[in-house]
Amino acid sequence: MSFSAMEYQQRIRKTKERMAAKGVEVLLITDPANMNYLSGYDGWSFYVHQMLIVIGDEDQPIWVGRTMDANAAKLTTWLYTDNIIPYPDIYVQSDVLHPMDFVADILKQIGQEKRSIGVEMENYYFTAKCYEQLKKGLPNAKFQDATLLVNWARIVKSDQEIEYMKRAALFVENAMADGIKMINEGVRECDVAAKILHTQVSGTAEYGGDYPAIMPLLPSGEKTSTPHLTWTDARYKQGDSVILELAGCYKRYHSPLARTVHIGRPNENLKALSEITVEGLNECLAIIKPGVALEEVEETWRKSIAKSGYLKESRIGYSMGLNYPPDWGEHTASIRKGDKTILQPNMTFHLIPGMWYEKSGFEVSESFRVTETGCETFADMPRELHIKDDVLLGYQAPVKEVQQKYADLF
Amino acid sequence: MSFSAMEYQQRIRKTKERMAAKGVEVLLITDPANMNYLSGYDGWSFYVHQMLIVIGDEDQPIWVGRTMDANAAKLTTWLYTDNIIPYPDIYVQSDVLHPMDFVADILKQIGQEKRSIGVEMENYYFTAKCYEQLKKGLPNAKFQDATLLVNWARIVKSDQEIEYMKRAALFVENAMADGIKMINEGVRECDVAAKILHTQVSGTAEYGGDYPAIMPLLPSGEKTSTPHLTWTDARYKQGDSVILELAGCYKRYHSPLARTVHIGRPNENLKALSEITVEGLNECLAIIKPGVALEEVEETWRKSIAKSGYLKESRIGYSMGLNYPPDWGEHTASIRKGDKTILQPNMTFHLIPGMWYEKSGFEVSESFRVTETGCETFADMPRELHIKDDVLLGYQAPVKEVQQKYADLF
Repeated sequence: MSFSAMEYQQRIRKTKERMAAKGVEVLLITDPANMNYLSGYDGWSFYVHQMLIVIGDEDQPIWVGRTMDANAAKLTTWLYTDNIIPYPDIYVQSDVLHPMDFVADILKQIGQEKRSIGVEMENYYFTAKCYEQLKKGLPNAKFQDATLLVNWARIVKSDQEIEYMKRAALFVENAMADGIKMINEGVRECDVAAKILHTQVSGTAEYGGDYPAIMPLLPSGEKTSTPHLTWTDARYKQGDSVILELAGCYKRYHSPLARTVHIGRPNENLKALSEITVEGLNECLAIIKPGVALEEVEETWRKSIAKSGYLKESRIGYSMGLNYPPDWGEHTASIRKGDKTILQPNMTFHLIPGMWYEKSGFEVSESFRVTETGCETFADMPRELHIKDDVLLGYQAPVKEVQQKYADLF
Repeated sequence: MSFSAMEYQQRIRKTKERMAAKGVEVLLITDPANMNYLSGYDGWSFYVHQMLIVIGDEDQPIWVGRTMDANAAKLTTWLYTDNIIPYPDIYVQSDVLHPMDFVADILKQIGQEKRSIGVEMENYYFTAKCYEQLKKGLPNAKFQDATLLVNWARIVKSDQEIEYMKRAALFVENAMADGIKMINEGVRECDVAAKILHTQVSGTAEYGGDYPAIMPLLPSGEKTSTPHLTWTDARYKQGDSVILELAGCYKRYHSPLARTVHIGRPNENLKALSEITVEGLNECLAIIKPGVALEEVEETWRKSIAKSGYLKESRIGYSMGLNYPPDWGEHTASIRKGDKTILQPNMTFHLIPGMWYEKSGFEVSESFRVTETGCETFADMPRELHIKDDVLLGYQAPVKEVQQKYADLF
């Protein structure tokens, strides 16, 4: 198990308090991160339907999943074997039976069919069909939207969770340094992605890496006009910018980080954009402390870039930590206009003010935790545009050393 | 673009024929593989809502997605810029606005609000909330379940798609060989996973690899009792079995492959299980040809293992090819009892008769295409249990050579 039995018990207690406050008697959890958070369950089985059922007046949750995954539940959760209920394979991707028919039958068998049932209406792993089948199977239940009920319980991390995110940060520092080092004219994008993945997953001598919930995002050239492209087997060219958005992951806990590299001498526009963005990011980090609202962080950013005439429509960050594909964000608090979430110690965010234009862009980010008096970033890596100019710099040494050596050039 | 304009046009035509047959006038596609199939769209942006709208009596589909991803649509699709419609960031993970409100508004603006609208009710990227918001926003529309409508159009591959799957098979052969070579007593699971990912993604000198829709599945020891565990940073021990289920991926097209390794001398049970499983797999491959029903393939398997008193409840394979996380399967045809799908040339399947017991298991698989007269597997790798016995074999050479050299031992 990744956490002590006591920590899991505390999580269950927090969840039940939230359930009680919302009048939810039975909570059906389909978000794999929420399943992991409460039970420890960990497997790439979320491509079929599975669920954790938390009943307000029962001690232990119930895991429901495919028969071949029941042993994974036995091996990775703290649940009694009796609470691990497998459904037969005939329910998998069938046009006749649906796993939610099975879940409805179980709920009837254990006398929960007339309860107030919370479901995660806005989750990748709770399809429209899931809801229709549950309603059909449990006509006397009262359904409630319990989206993010557990996610909000996850927003303040325990010290153990913070420790895991710090380990993840070591992986992403190394992966980012490897990526920046390797990117150069003539190198294939896929070879850089392969090296990054190797570093993310092998981790350090002490701790091994887990797969990040998002694959390396590596748009280059004109593709830096948009953030979510991965890679191709094209070769980098002189004059290309490359945006790297990566995360380290340890036991499903993430530390994301974004940096931008330019091959050759950047033009004045890109240099100016990078300086303004880094300054805005720095100003945000400087005001973060317990008691500050997220919208104030965004306001700091907005005012900072407005001085140079820049404007950004999209949010500049979000709460993150434990997750599974396709996202490492928690989908709760966002750093944007109107988000009144108040910062507390051990909240963790990815602050990522990406700037994308018609033909190019610039990204820099930090993942941080809120401390008692401010914030600390998980990773430690220069924020400036990383310039790869072989002629000028003889770029061979690790990033930080080169940056220090040629500090006046950046 | 990964395919010719003509191939995309054919796909649109096939889709419209299926829509007409079902009485669907407007099809809302949220499955990223279906979006890619019809438009070419490719980006890790499926963690927010996005959609391709196919209107039966309009030439081009419409892409709807987040503003920052609109440039990705311009860069990766064949659509006119006018048909790329971005929604503002305030719709992202908001508790007030939902992207389907935006979609409903668009459909009203273009006069589609009273049509028969098909939605993918059973897709990871069409949540229960999506459906609720669409119904609310379009009270006069008639909604129909169009799950798998496009997936079924994808089941027979073009020659170009087959070519991509063959390239993916080169990657998985190499990744599997690297994994088998590296697995040994004292080696960390994460280091094997890192090496495998590196090989999957760097690809060959000629073609670069894409990320597979499922991360390497690498259960070891007791964890081989279940198929969907990834890896940890534990070290392999003498007597461990390790199951490897991996795919190569080229331009989102997959070739999956599973093999089992044993460190040290396997016991008689495992040896027998592996032989019976390989024999069953071989018998299935031998009967596959156009005109055979999938249930006949399963029956061949069932009878083959029954000779030795074995039984398997779960399906033994599924149609696959183009996909995104969390699954490389197409969710259409399965190789199981009752599936009456008739094999046709250029259908492609992953035949994976995994056998899992209380404390251990064995997996072997092949991905294949149906030919005019039979089938051909994409990869070429010995199917037997791979035995890593340093003392006996001095295991250093590539898998195939060792297997040939010590053929009498296997």
